Amino acid sequence: MITVESKAQRGSRKIYADGPDGMRVPMREISLTNGEQHVLYDTSGPYTDPEKTIDLRRGLEPLRAPWIEARGAGANVTQMHYARRGEITPEMEFIAIREQVEPAFVRDEVARGRAIIPANVNHPESEPMIIGRNFLVKINANIGNSAVSSSIDEEVEKMTWATRWGADTIMDLSTGKNIHETREWIIRNSPVPIGTVPIYQALEKVRGKAEELTWEVYRDTLIEQAEQGVDYFTIHAGVLLRYVPLTAERVTGIVSRGGSILAKWCLAHHKENFLYTHFEEICEIMKAYDVSFSLGDGLRPGCLADANDAAQFAELDTLGELTQLAWKHDVQVMIEGPGHVPMHLIKENVERELEICKEAPFYTLGPLVTDVAPGYDHITSAIGAAMIGWYGTAMLCYVTPKEHLGLPDKQDVKDGVIAYKIAAHAADVAKGHPGARHWDDVLSKARFEFR
Amino acid sequence: MITVESKAQRGSRKIYADGPDGMRVPMREISLTNGEQHVLYDTSGPYTDPEKTIDLRRGLEPLRAPWIEARGAGANVTQMHYARRGEITPEMEFIAIREQVEPAFVRDEVARGRAIIPANVNHPESEPMIIGRNFLVKINANIGNSAVSSSIDEEVEKMTWATRWGADTIMDLSTGKNIHETREWIIRNSPVPIGTVPIYQALEKVRGKAEELTWEVYRDTLIEQAEQGVDYFTIHAGVLLRYVPLTAERVTGIVSRGGSILAKWCLAHHKENFLYTHFEEICEIMKAYDVSFSLGDGLRPGCLADANDAAQFAELDTLGELTQLAWKHDVQVMIEGPGHVPMHLIKENVERELEICKEAPFYTLGPLVTDVAPGYDHITSAIGAAMIGWYGTAMLCYVTPKEHLGLPDKQDVKDGVIAYKIAAHAADVAKGHPGARHWDDVLSKARFEFR
Repeated sequence: MITVESKAQRGSRKIYADGPDGMRVPMREISLTNGEQHVLYDTSGPYTDPEKTIDLRRGLEPLRAPWIEARGAGANVTQMHYARRGEITPEMEFIAIREQVEPAFVRDEVARGRAIIPANVNHPESEPMIIGRNFLVKINANIGNSAVSSSIDEEVEKMTWATRWGADTIMDLSTGKNIHETREWIIRNSPVPIGTVPIYQALEKVRGKAEELTWEVYRDTLIEQAEQGVDYFTIHAGVLLRYVPLTAERVTGIVSRGGSILAKWCLAHHKENFLYTHFEEICEIMKAYDVSFSLGDGLRPGCLADANDAAQFAELDTLGELTQLAWKHDVQVMIEGPGHVPMHLIKENVERELEICKEAPFYTLGPLVTDVAPGYDHITSAIGAAMIGWYGTAMLCYVTPKEHLGLPDKQDVKDGVIAYKIAAHAADVAKGHPGARHWDDVLSKARFEFR
Repeated sequence: MITVESKAQRGSRKIYADGPDGMRVPMREISLTNGEQHVLYDTSGPYTDPEKTIDLRRGLEPLRAPWIEARGAGANVTQMHYARRGEITPEMEFIAIREQVEPAFVRDEVARGRAIIPANVNHPESEPMIIGRNFLVKINANIGNSAVSSSIDEEVEKMTWATRWGADTIMDLSTGKNIHETREWIIRNSPVPIGTVPIYQALEKVRGKAEELTWEVYRDTLIEQAEQGVDYFTIHAGVLLRYVPLTAERVTGIVSRGGSILAKWCLAHHKENFLYTHFEEICEIMKAYDVSFSLGDGLRPGCLADANDAAQFAELDTLGELTQLAWKHDVQVMIEGPGHVPMHLIKENVERELEICKEAPFYTLGPLVTDVAPGYDHITSAIGAAMIGWYGTAMLCYVTPKEHLGLPDKQDVKDGVIAYKIAAHAADVAKGHPGARHWDDVLSKARFEFR
């Protein structure tokens, strides 16, 4: 039995707000030395509740289990499906308390596709959260080992560490051996939604040879991961055969790993991307578990010179088309975005995405606003992230200081998460999100009074 | 004799471009492993020239001495004065090579007040540089000891360290004992312009009692510092008596140290700020040495809640009026700006400043885009700095991680400078500054080719 004793945090404590039917919604209460309190959104799950000890072998308490059970095994269990039927799920109630809005508002935003609740029915351990531009801006932290580095324990530790500092979701980008087992440990112990890029595991199954990938291998991987409880899948279904030549003149070509794999497959077979041709079959799998799409930007720019180019925007047009198809099945969708974009070209990315993808939540990697500072990409990208969040991006995927140099260690995870919490909060403030600036005011008042 | 051996830097070397009359303009050449070279603007002076050894007791070679001598001791020796007479000074020639523009363009920008060349005739050791929005965005690093901490040696080391990492100017904010001697060592050894806030030393002379300040004490301090070679003075002449009550309802009141001192004086005597009433006498001193004004924002906001308020903008109106007065004397002027500003209010700051101060260069502290992250203010403020630089700010004053917690040490200086080099470069790229993106493209190409 491997146990973790959860810890109290200096200056703050875990509290729970009461919801309907005995629901307890975690929050973090900050105490200032003058006795004032301020309540913050809390992502850390039971790991900051000093009354809990977590047995990592057994995983977290499956708090959503009764809700999911009551729902029954139906053909379509997505939050969007319920929302469109006018139902308010317990997940929506939970989120309404966290975000301090009405439950009906949560439902309506999900129904029209402007927000998603990544909540696989097989990940009952997760605390419901929402991604959409009319809610708090969220941040994602990437973790994951490779064949050559880090153990399962380290990855689980990075996950708890990232959520403690404020990560709203975690992507497990593990490759190499133990990919299934690593994911299992992460999911069972994660209080936040988990995302993956299933093509990475599919590629392992064909010994790394992209051209040997088949729809069947990929489909089985999707089902395997959906069964485990992955909450959202990055799927590069927009990398079409005819778009690949558009990247030929780029400075950095295709930098997305998933994008490269699919481009290679398309060129090897001279066939259309099988994720595109089988898209509705994928939707059938997604809706049986409520896995959300994170439609991947396989052709995102890898440097400023390639930003907002024909390849990037061609793929976005296809992602817009696929969004409609997913929504036909009531499957939740968010759209991935770049990457590397100079400041003056950031806004166009959001505006196009909102128009073409009919306001499906945008989920961007940074963007980095210059290519010249490897080793400082958490800063370079936090600038772009804050701006794109202000313009309307719903979730910001962090970039760690080591982004272009190696895999992040625990300190890199912390540095990346903190830089992105700053960016997300600055975006909330600039958007005029209700209550966001209150925390600034409380801290400034405290500083002014030299407390 | 205390000597410093200048060092070669890994992957880069000091080179000199030839100018007219044997002028040698320093640059930094970066070599990539494929044999390509890229030339960057260099601020580090002789400290990165491996062929030099600097005797700190004797100071740097006074490279501008012959130019200044040839000019003779006139009533008005400002670069603006020469520019308005149509003359191109050696300083302008030097800058034209650094910035890769025509000398006549440098002259014209200085003549119309849209750029300044801070270059006290008594600081001949400095390498000419220009601050204006049609040139590369510059960054300033604050150093300075206080009564309780750090020695003169440490401050000189911070100065060389800051310029090595890319600081374009240095402000010496020392207080306490040895203020004159510390400044002397810094100026004699600094290859970049030095700025100060003379009210700090004037206050020391009246034993810290703001109400005992007099015009005479202040004037003598200005002359003392101008004689030493300070290149620009922060002067809070816009803190008018009638503006002080506008800060009463603020969350953080007056946070500028200079602003507080002047406000205290105004209230104690119930008289108008003596810096305002003696402004033209100050101009007479400035023009005899070519010290530039950095018109201080003594009423800048100290938190988001106070941003863009009546007090801040009232002071800005007065700074606009004083700019005209300084220009009447051909004295160079830049305008200081905030501070703490949420993203959506940043642009208004630049637009107002450009309009009210007739395009005099804007020089801002950050701004920080949230108040909630003490300990990470280099990141919080780099976001605002990049944006305000893009919108037209000419120089960005860094904020170090320790800004609200203590005085910066050497590591803080490095962290602050690097974050601000990123912000300034990102701004240059977004503004489409000629050549700025070339460095991004070269690095991205190198990364793509796995060099």
